This record gives sequence, structure tokens and C-alpha cells, in this order.
Amino acid sequence: MKRLTIFSLTCLFSMGAVFAQQGVTQCGVPTGQPKFPLLTYQELPDPTAPSDKEWAAVTSTQVSWGTTDIRYAKHQLPQLKKQQTVSLKGWRGERVNAQAVVWTGVELKDLNFSFGDFKDKKGNVLPKDAFTGGFVRYVMTDELNKDGRGACGHRKSVDYDSLLVADPIDTNLKTMALPARTVQPVWVQCWIPQSATPGTYRGELLINDGSRLLQRLNLEITVSPRELPQPSEWAYHLDLWQSPYAVARYYQVPLWSQEHFDAMRPLMKMLADAGQKIITATLTYKPWNGQTEDYFDTMVTWMKRADGTWAFDYTIFDRWVEFMMSVGIDKQINCYSMVPWELSFQYYDQATNSLQFVKTAPGEAAYEEMWGAMLASFSKHLKEKGWFDICAIAMDERPMEVMQKTLKVIRKADPDFKVSLAGNYHAEIEPELYDYCIVIGQDFPEEVRLRRVAENKRTNYYTCCTEAHPNTFTFSEPAEAAWMSYYSSKKQLDGYLRWAYNSWPLEPLLDSRFRSWAGGDTYLVYPGARSCIRFERLIEGIQAHEKIHILRQEFEKKGNKAGLKKIEKMLAPFHLGSMPEIPAAVTVNRANQILNSF
Amino acid sequence: MKRLTIFSLTCLFSMGAVFAQQGVTQCGVPTGQPKFPLLTYQELPDPTAPSDKEWAAVTSTQVSWGTTDIRYAKHQLPQLKKQQTVSLKGWRGERVNAQAVVWTGVELKDLNFSFGDFKDKKGNVLPKDAFTGGFVRYVMTDELNKDGRGACGHRKSVDYDSLLVADPIDTNLKTMALPARTVQPVWVQCWIPQSATPGTYRGELLINDGSRLLQRLNLEITVSPRELPQPSEWAYHLDLWQSPYAVARYYQVPLWSQEHFDAMRPLMKMLADAGQKIITATLTYKPWNGQTEDYFDTMVTWMKRADGTWAFDYTIFDRWVEFMMSVGIDKQINCYSMVPWELSFQYYDQATNSLQFVKTAPGEAAYEEMWGAMLASFSKHLKEKGWFDICAIAMDERPMEVMQKTLKVIRKADPDFKVSLAGNYHAEIEPELYDYCIVIGQDFPEEVRLRRVAENKRTNYYTCCTEAHPNTFTFSEPAEAAWMSYYSSKKQLDGYLRWAYNSWPLEPLLDSRFRSWAGGDTYLVYPGARSCIRFERLIEGIQAHEKIHILRQEFEKKGNKAGLKKIEKMLAPFHLGSMPEIPAAVTVNRANQILNSF
Repeated sequence: MKRLTIFSLTCLFSMGAVFAQQGVTQCGVPTGQPKFPLLTYQELPDPTAPSDKEWAAVTSTQVSWGTTDIRYAKHQLPQLKKQQTVSLKGWRGERVNAQAVVWTGVELKDLNFSFGDFKDKKGNVLPKDAFTGGFVRYVMTDELNKDGRGACGHRKSVDYDSLLVADPIDTNLKTMALPARTVQPVWVQCWIPQSATPGTYRGELLINDGSRLLQRLNLEITVSPRELPQPSEWAYHLDLWQSPYAVARYYQVPLWSQEHFDAMRPLMKMLADAGQKIITATLTYKPWNGQTEDYFDTMVTWMKRADGTWAFDYTIFDRWVEFMMSVGIDKQINCYSMVPWELSFQYYDQATNSLQFVKTAPGEAAYEEMWGAMLASFSKHLKEKGWFDICAIAMDERPMEVMQKTLKVIRKADPDFKVSLAGNYHAEIEPELYDYCIVIGQDFPEEVRLRRVAENKRTNYYTCCTEAHPNTFTFSEPAEAAWMSYYSSKKQLDGYLRWAYNSWPLEPLLDSRFRSWAGGDTYLVYPGARSCIRFERLIEGIQAHEKIHILRQEFEKKGNKAGLKKIEKMLAPFHLGSMPEIPAAVTVNRANQILNSF
Repeated sequence: MKRLTIFSLTCLFSMGAVFAQQGVTQCGVPTGQPKFPLLTYQELPDPTAPSDKEWAAVTSTQVSWGTTDIRYAKHQLPQLKKQQTVSLKGWRGERVNAQAVVWTGVELKDLNFSFGDFKDKKGNVLPKDAFTGGFVRYVMTDELNKDGRGACGHRKSVDYDSLLVADPIDTNLKTMALPARTVQPVWVQCWIPQSATPGTYRGELLINDGSRLLQRLNLEITVSPRELPQPSEWAYHLDLWQSPYAVARYYQVPLWSQEHFDAMRPLMKMLADAGQKIITATLTYKPWNGQTEDYFDTMVTWMKRADGTWAFDYTIFDRWVEFMMSVGIDKQINCYSMVPWELSFQYYDQATNSLQFVKTAPGEAAYEEMWGAMLASFSKHLKEKGWFDICAIAMDERPMEVMQKTLKVIRKADPDFKVSLAGNYHAEIEPELYDYCIVIGQDFPEEVRLRRVAENKRTNYYTCCTEAHPNTFTFSEPAEAAWMSYYSSKKQLDGYLRWAYNSWPLEPLLDSRFRSWAGGDTYLVYPGARSCIRFERLIEGIQAHEKIHILRQEFEKKGNKAGLKKIEKMLAPFHLGSMPEIPAAVTVNRANQILNSF
């Protein structure tokens, strides 16, 4: 394998400028195409060239089933045993995935694929629209920190490996031209209808070059009599934070315009279909100090009138919440942040006709004055809207004293406000927190967890850049995305939180790297409402969590101790520290097999 | 007379920076004292030093009555015939002025003055509080444009003479220290009570150094049986535009705070006492493109909501109008401007949480959309407040087509809106204008003027930097300020407009020059609510206009044609072009004498 040293492909830290209409990635790499592509785009050149030695024997086009556990490299001969049939198992209502791999020694002008009919022996049929296929695309990434311990901290990409990895799944593209010595995976998904008759369905994936059949691949789908509800009915507490701001910028549409909502709709529908329950709302300008490519702004308009009184307007907040509810995400609204990272609060100052800041901290009179006014108004507004009971004032980890003072201000404004926190475990304030999400490495005391269940509170964990494994970087092992929800099941938690559903870097389709963290840290889906290997495997884990939840309820109801024991045994191998020595795929696939045996 | 060449005293065009707490004037001259002085201050050094020859014979201190027509230079031996008695005539309710002059060959440590009792032969008394005295202070100025034709256009003060002239009247100061070879005028005013018994009152002005009497000056005041009403009752349409923004900056108080209103109250009370009828209000950001040291901002808050609708808030507007009404200025509100000099309209954009601009002109859809919404809202608000009938949408001169399109938008929003214009005479739109103020050099056709009187419309003229004479620059002949209202009387107009009551340059007490126009163009009163020679002479003219108005009404009612003829004859010499050949003082004093003979 030859390594090309293309300097221009290394991420030149925070250049970020967009020259005219030509795209440039976050790392300053010219994309060679107009900025912010949507329907079609060209991937960045692969820093790794095909090896003559490897490819010499490949004089034709090869097709085989691969595995969803592997990101097949673009110019590396796939190390796989050719396999013509793949068997998948799933519940009714579940999504199951497979990955086919095409690699070719010769140029292909018009690679395309289609599905045959899927029937069981009794003649039952899985409908065509249950099947989706997409070309897996390649995106630039980097790697973990050099010490292997996570991926946090500002980074110059010249210090890191530049790697083109398989991740986005492009269902827009019906055909692809492949140069010789190229690998092209095809992602296949069957969303088993809830109405499907249990049984084993057999069908084909046809891989063609133009109208010429290259290969038939057999796909068997065994449908269990068990049923997974619609995602909106899942118990799973999925909290991936949404960035409407990144969408407006990438799609180049005015914020909160109809075009903006139109652009967000398919993207947020994907999120709803993954089981998302929480609407991410912002109460302040830059709650996270503008750490993302597109900073978060306030959805509540703060105006200090010339007579010294505060006026609040909820037009944006209402439109955003109503929009999210219209796509099916309607269980909870998390509002950031009374304790932003920079304790400086922006408002429109009527007297001076300008945007001003108040620097104030919980415990100070100015803080209590402004937040007291805001929360009183907000509580009233939420009650008018009927949203008070699903709304939580959301905090990120802050020093204990700060959080306690903040809670005091909240309680004074309205003792019934729900509060959420993503942070460390703190016994002192735990009883105050309706939605408490702690770092993956920490534990809720079991009696606390049980009490929280009894109190109908949400109890979760999160990952971010800190964890080397499991994680969802664009270079992470795909199964790690699924691993995380099994782990949540093992811990008997409600679900999972990650801070970034779509905080896109400058050119997310081309280069997943960002100035502060490893590639892919800031997003799980791509523009054009493109899913990816990471996101599909994440959904796989969420489905497993939901299935385990259903089985546990059933077994408990029926007193099926053997069943419950089998589940615990199945989940036992999910322990932090097992990866990367034991790949996530090994643990996940073994568990999945057991899970599908129930 | 020796001329010092002090470079630092020339106005270094638009330096404008304020270094730390040390003052620097508009022209970059360090003031040698903290910036923005209020209670006391030091004048800038006089560029003209005393002449040894002139002053050699002056070995003591001299005191005499002077005239209010002369700005006595600070270091030039006054050319006056010593006069120990001055006689003034006035109506009950009128203010009359005199000027005493002190010049000294020796240092005076504690110059001060006091008034004796004022009695007539029958023993009637004018009360103490009818008398005010103030030291006349010196301020830096420049001169007309080099061609003598007005004073418009950006100017580098190095191109102009720097002159220290007598203008501010400092009633704060009870005592002054005078170096040898210094001139110090004292301004004296008697505001004759309306309750005064007609007759001739005699009293004294005592000029002292410490407790040592330097001179007794006799003052005779002959009070006419005629009565001038309170300024608020005057028919005179005085329209000097107020800048609350300059006050906030100079007094270093937050805009629209209680301290701000406290600072403005005495200043605006002076304006009310001068007969001001109009509140200057702004509807937009920078209606005059920020041409003044402190730009005018909008008093109406414009918010474009994220749903595309407009929201307006009138908190500032209401507070300002209510404040002005509380000081007695309550007859009319002129609102600027639908046609600002830069056709760019600022608003707070809720969607992007930022201040944005729409560039649009009358006739365009965007213009009609935003102004249609604004005027509909404004009309409703004004009616709620009971102010609709006294409010005028105010324009400055713009191309005819633009003004016609603007009027169309106004009429569409509310056909009853009053409109005002300060500009050229245009027969096409004259009928639309409630308050029409034209350039001094132009004329209203007589039939138009008469029709406007019948329709109870306001008809006036204005001066600005264009006119060399009459004008109210700090170097203008004092009587020109009075001349202007006699001219208005002659033209049978309602009054007078000038665009700047207090658009102060950086250090208005010290340096009246400004980057764009001749010294004093931008203001008529000084910080600390200090009046000045120009403003007192302006009031003198306004009083004359009011007296003429009263006499004309009386003579018309009584059919006194001889009286009316005498008035017209008295006013005949007031014609443009008479100055400077015939000084304004000559014309004004002759007319004043006649006026007081009625």
C-alpha cells in the first residue's frame, strides 16, 4: 500500500474561509466543487493510492456480501471471503442491515443495484418499499489523540493521520462510475413492516453495470412474531442535540424561514425515526460559547425595555417546538442554558438600540433579576402552550455551588419547573433533577436508580470526545455505536445522550474533521438527510435496547426468571474497558444472536 | 495686537478621540481638564494676546455698560464710551437684556456682582428673582467659508481662523478671577413679571472685587402696560430640534435613565421658555445619517419577528414625549424620518438575533410593506395616547418623486396623518403639508400663505449653514439672532426652524467648531443648561414676533390701519441682503424702538 503525501489534504487548523463559491473544508482543503453540495458531490481524493501488488490479480469486477461491522477502504482490496447469501433476523417493525461490497479491477461506468421480490414459502411478500439501498460514500477523517485516550482538545490536522473512511450512505445516487481498483460498498436495509407475517423471506440484491448483471446476492430475512413498536412509542430516551443553525448555513436559507423548516424536515424525521424524544431548545445566545462551526443562538428574544423592564418573545421557540412536534419529536423540551459556559447574557437593549451583554453569575442580584423575570414569563408561556410539564431547564456540568444557586433561582420562579443535567453524578442535587444524564464511566447508586424509576424520572448516560471507545467518530468501529445502547440496557438506564446530532463542520459530506475534536465528533448524519454507518448502527443498538426493555417487562410480568437471567448474561460482556481488545462487533453480534433467539 | 501661533489650537479635522479622562475638543485640542465639565471649567487659551500698546494706559479696573450687540473680545481693549446708565423697555412678561463690561489692567481675584433694589417713583418694586446675571464666557470658533457665502461643507480648521469669542452665559459662577489685561462682560437680564405695575423702575448693578465695590451701574427698566403671555401661550412656532443623545453622552448617563431625564430637564425647560412648540422625535436609526457628533437613534423599536411580522415598541417614544410635555413643550410632535438621507432602515431581526438593514426606497414593495406596518401600528398607538392630532410625520427635503411616493404610503396607512416638511417650496405637495417650513430665501405665494392661515396650518422658514447672514454661528453678529424673527413677522410666517438646539460637538463649552460646518452651527445652548448671547437674542426676536402678532391682532380688530401701516413700515428694512452692509443691530434696534412705542 502506497501512501500519498498530499499536503493539501491535511487539515490546516481553522482556516475555515470559504473562497467565492468554491468549497473549502474546515481544514482548508479545497473541495474542487461549489460549496455546500446537496444532491451530488465528489469525494475528496484518497490520500491512500491502490497498491499495484494487491490489485494486480483483480482484472474484473467482484461482488460479495460483506459485514456492517467494517468500513471497507476505498482503495484497499477487501479482505473478505466471498459470500453470496446473508441471513438477517428481526422483529416486525425492526430495521435490519446488510452491506454488499463491489470491488473492481476495471472501470465501471454505471454501477447500480436493485432488489428482487422477497417471499416466504407460503407466498407472503415483503413490500418493495420496505427495502432501501444506498452507496456508501467516503469522508475524510483523522484519528484519536496520540495517546489513544479520547479525542478532545484543539488539534492541528497536520499532526494527525488523514484518512478517507466509509461512512455516509447516499440513497440519492442511483448509479456510480467507478475507476479501476476501487471498492464500493452498498448498504442495504429492510424496515420490516409491523404488519409482516412472521417467516423467512428470500430475495435478491442485483448488482449491475448499466443493464448488465454483475452479480445476484441472496438475502434472507427471518421475521420474528415479536413486534417492535413505532419509534415514537419506544421507551428509549434518545437525546441527540439538534442544530437548526448548521442547517440554515449549509442549505443557505434564512434562519426560521419556510425554506429552513423544509430543509430540516427530512433530517429531523430521520431523528424521530431513530427514537428521539427530546427537542433541543436554546434560551440564550451561545449557550456553549460558540464552540461549533455554527454557533447556537437564542430562541427566546430578550429585550430590556428603556423603562428597565424585561420583555420576552417566544416566536422562534414556539415555531421550533411546533415544527419538531410535527415531525414526531414531542416528549420533552430541554432548554439551554441558564449556566452557559461563558456567564455572559446577551439581550437587545432598547435604550441604546443595540445588543448588550450582562456578565453575571448565579448568586448575584443581576442574575436573579434577569432570570427571575425570564423564568416567570417562560413558565406562563409554557403553561399557555400546554408544554410546561414536558419542558426542562437544562444545564451542563458546572461547579456544584453554581448549580445549587441556579436551582434556587429556578425554584423561586416556579417550584414545578423540571430540570435536566448532563454532567457528573452528584448526590447533593440528584433529587432535583428530572432528567439526569451522567458520564459513561460513572454509576448511579442502585437505590437512586430504582427510586428514579419509581418517580418516573429520566436516567441516562452520555459520551463525548472523552471516550476512545465506545464512540461514534467517523473512524470508530461501526459496532461501537450499537454497543452503547446494550451498555445502557445492562445499566438499566433509559437511554443515551450525545451533544451533537448535526453540528456540522464546514463541509461535512467531504471532511468530518473539526478544529476541536476527532472527525465526526460533531455530527451523526449528513446534509441531504443522508444517514451513515454510524447512525444506522446506533439505531440498531437503540432497537436492541427497546427489545430488551420489552422482553424484561414480559419476563417480569410472567415471572420468567430464566429469561431475565439470560438477558443479564447476554449483557454481561458489555463492560467498559473491553474495547478495543475485544472489538465491539464481537460483543454486539453475540448479544444480537441471543436477543433474536427470544 | 499680537497674534500667537499656537498650532494646537487649530482644529485638527475629525480627530475626535478622547484620551483617558482628559478632554480633547472636536478639533483635537487638549482641554487641559477632565472631559465634559459641568459645574466649572477653564476656557481654552486665547490665540490673541493682549497688545502692550493698547493696554499700557490701563492701570486699574474699568466698568461700563456695553451693548448686547457686541461680543467683547477677551484681550482687546473695549472700544466703548463709558456709560453708567442704561435704559431698557419691555412689556410685562418680557425678558430684557443688558451687558456690562469689566476690563482690567490689574489682576482681579474675586470679581462678582449683585443687584440693588428696583423701584419706581410710586414705590412699586420689581422682585429680586426677576433679575439674572451671568459672566459671559469665551468659546473657540472659526469663521464663514472663505468666499463669505455660508458655512457649509467639511472643513479642516487649520484652513480657518481660530477665534475665542464671547457667547456662553455662565450663571453658575458667582465669582471670577481675572488676570491683568482681560475683558469680562456680565450679562444682565430682567424677566419682567406679568404682574408688574407699569412704570419706570430704577436700580443698580454693583460690580465688586471681593467685598470692594468697583462700580455702581444704573439700570432703568420701563415696564409697558402691555402684556406678553407665558411662552407656552405664544403663537410663535419655534422648532429647534432637540438631541437627547448629545445630553446622554456629555453628561455620561445611560440613555433614557432617570439621570438622563434629570440632566435634560433644565435644558429643555430653557427651550420651553423660549417658546418651543415642537417635540423632535425619531422613528428610525440615524435619520440624518449620523452627521452629528452623537447620532440620533430610533425612539421606536423595530422588530421583525421570525414569522415575518413586524412588532413595534414605543417605550422610548412615549417616555420622551411625556417628558417633553412635562416641561411644557406639548403642541406638536415631529417624527423623523420615513425618508432618511441614507435610505437604509435598521431593525432588530429576531430570526438572526441581530440588527439588520433593509435598503429600500419609497415606491418599492419592501418600503411599503415595512412602513405600511409601522404607520398602521403607530397611528393606533398615537390614538391610544391621544397624540394623533398633534403628531406629524416629518420629512427633510427629498426629490419630488420620492416625497410624493412617501405621501402615498402615509395616506394609505392613515389618511389623517399630519405631515411636515423642511425644504424647498413645492406647489405640487404644499396642500398635503400641515407644517411647511421653507428655506429663508424662498417665498410662499401670498394666496397659499393666506389659505394656510385659514386652514390652521403652520407656515415657516428655516436657516442652516447655507446663510452667511442672518445666522447664529458663535461668531455671528448677536443681533442676527433677533433679526430672524422680525423677518418672519415681515413675511407673516408663524415662526422659525433650526435643526439644532443642542447637537453638541465634543466639548461644546470650550470649542464650538465642528467638522462639517462653522462654529456654533450645531447648537444654541450649552451644557449645564447655560444660555448664551445667541440664544438670548433669539428669544428677543421671538418676543418681538409675538408682540407684533398681538399688536396686529389688536389693530385689525380695532381697524387701526395707521398702526398696521406703522408695523409694516417698521418691518420693511428687514430684507435679505441688507447684511452685513447694514448690521443687523441697526435694523433690529430701530425696529425695537418703534415696537416699544406702541
